[in-house]
Amino acid sequence: MTRFRFAPIPAALPATVPFTGPETLERRRGAPFLARLGANENGFGPSPRAVAAMARAAAEVWKYADPDSHDLRHALAAHHGVGPQNIMIGEGIDGLLGLLVRLMVAPGETVVSSDGAYPTFHYHVAGFGGRLVKVPYREDAEDPEALIAAARQTGPRLVYLANPDNPMGSWHLGARIEAMLDDLPQGSLLVLDEAYAEFAPAGAMPRIDPEDARVIRFRTFSKAYAMAGARVGYAIGPAELLAGFDRIRNHFGINRIAQIGALAALEDRDWLAHLLAETGAARARLAAIAGENGLTALPSATNFVAIDCGRDGAFAGALLEGLAQHGIFVRMPGVAPLDRCIRVSCGPGAELDAFAQALPRVLKALA
Amino acid sequence: MTRFRFAPIPAALPATVPFTGPETLERRRGAPFLARLGANENGFGPSPRAVAAMARAAAEVWKYADPDSHDLRHALAAHHGVGPQNIMIGEGIDGLLGLLVRLMVAPGETVVSSDGAYPTFHYHVAGFGGRLVKVPYREDAEDPEALIAAARQTGPRLVYLANPDNPMGSWHLGARIEAMLDDLPQGSLLVLDEAYAEFAPAGAMPRIDPEDARVIRFRTFSKAYAMAGARVGYAIGPAELLAGFDRIRNHFGINRIAQIGALAALEDRDWLAHLLAETGAARARLAAIAGENGLTALPSATNFVAIDCGRDGAFAGALLEGLAQHGIFVRMPGVAPLDRCIRVSCGPGAELDAFAQALPRVLKALA
Repeated sequence: MTRFRFAPIPAALPATVPFTGPETLERRRGAPFLARLGANENGFGPSPRAVAAMARAAAEVWKYADPDSHDLRHALAAHHGVGPQNIMIGEGIDGLLGLLVRLMVAPGETVVSSDGAYPTFHYHVAGFGGRLVKVPYREDAEDPEALIAAARQTGPRLVYLANPDNPMGSWHLGARIEAMLDDLPQGSLLVLDEAYAEFAPAGAMPRIDPEDARVIRFRTFSKAYAMAGARVGYAIGPAELLAGFDRIRNHFGINRIAQIGALAALEDRDWLAHLLAETGAARARLAAIAGENGLTALPSATNFVAIDCGRDGAFAGALLEGLAQHGIFVRMPGVAPLDRCIRVSCGPGAELDAFAQALPRVLKALA
Repeated sequence: MTRFRFAPIPAALPATVPFTGPETLERRRGAPFLARLGANENGFGPSPRAVAAMARAAAEVWKYADPDSHDLRHALAAHHGVGPQNIMIGEGIDGLLGLLVRLMVAPGETVVSSDGAYPTFHYHVAGFGGRLVKVPYREDAEDPEALIAAARQTGPRLVYLANPDNPMGSWHLGARIEAMLDDLPQGSLLVLDEAYAEFAPAGAMPRIDPEDARVIRFRTFSKAYAMAGARVGYAIGPAELLAGFDRIRNHFGINRIAQIGALAALEDRDWLAHLLAETGAARARLAAIAGENGLTALPSATNFVAIDCGRDGAFAGALLEGLAQHGIFVRMPGVAPLDRCIRVSCGPGAELDAFAQALPRVLKALA
């Protein structure tokens, strides 16, 4: 209860937040982390060309960004082979997901997702009064057939699937995603969160006509492009659907420096290749560290590795806590049985070294 | 009509947007503007210390920003003599106004504002299904007594007042704002948009206890601090009210470079004094240019000057169009009788020179 009368939907929401930031954890422990491997940030760092472009843009920050994101939008359209009207830039996928829910889901309407899938999407569904129907993961992956079955039962406005998946790192073949579209009930829109697309193996990305009215896809500069702090994501989808965002979005909400930096990052294909190579090596190293400690790394199509700790959520949580005391910031899935794992982001060698040193000590202390 | 079934509230919204960006206008005219004086940006530019801090932060943009904005929030709290729990950082005042409406206004509930006041606030009220009751300006200023009278008639959730005012540049004394609070009906919250506060003369800012449950204030780094493209604004208000934002905001929505830059800008008091001095001089110059052309500059407590063109909105619109053809970007109020004016932002000498050269030519062509 507060002295303030909030509108009914926010009044019924919990005061909690999806994630606690690493800076808050650092302030609590009174020291910075040695390894920042908890938020799937890309510690290999952004393109030097993007950094230079952002540094140059800093003096021009007195100008608002172009509310149409014309240059970035056209460059992304060319990159994906779609029209500029099929791209909508937003303040990260998080911001765009919130707008999508607001645009499509009236209070009380249904959204289908997976129990354990991206908490921020679920936060937005609750935040606009949507009714969330969740199906379980199957073999540590989101389950297309179960999602479709739930959709056919409940006729939801949205069906959410991340491919590759966070927090488990699993993925589906593009053909399976394409098949989902054919089974989707009429009036349901597939929300395809492809935040980790660039890390995925060949074949994991579906071929989708951007004007296909059954699906909207989301991409970001936060992960593969190592620009999480920039807050630039984008949707790919039908022009009529994306035009709906213009009715409600914060038109001048994009940071100008980020807008310019994202364009430079997109153009630096060599650096992206470098980041993907570094990520692949770090993924292998994380799997090796897990193995050396008697734990099992799950296959990953992302820039993180879910490590199966072989017991329950309480044990993984204790491991997480122990790692934090050793200066290692990692996170874990929120629901059973996924929460038998910890989720470790790929990062530079020194940070993985710190993790490799801390992990056996914490395991020993817990034994 | 679209192929997509939007939720009822967005389905009923127009497809239009509050403002067209200058870049779009430049693309239409096929050349950049000589003078960017239309969006109340601060062309004198941000603090060199802030620019340096942002340039340094660019390489670290792979990290998300601190979702608590701890350092900036504590610095702002100290600056304003309030508690850190009385400060909420957001993606510009625009973003925060949207969150406030969403938090406080259920569909169909009433909001009181002025006809001609900040279009983005009205956009958000409509965007969340609020019912907007508008009172006219009085003597080119928002009218506190009329706002209160409308509030007492309609019992709104929010009453909006900008002090100083955009688009007219007028202002009220702090004592008059304080008196409004005592007359506000119970259950109404005064939304005090102080985007231009730093430009205002002594006495224009009310003294308000941050825990006063009748009011929330908004400030920004976009205007006096010359960081519009950063997207950093903040609310000052009761802790319980601001905590409500945590239920619905995009917690990782702030750009990290901007967060760091805003803190450096806040600390550079000398540069702020420099910007305020430059702005004051530019304001006087704009008034002189108006006078030389037989037009009347209205008094301004902001970084722009409303110039009364002495005729109607059609004439001011034609003047605006003519100025754009001469490479001068300015804007004008949207409703009569305010729209007899054009609104010219303060800016560097060369841009004011360009305006001074173009204005008599356009006036002559229109005569």
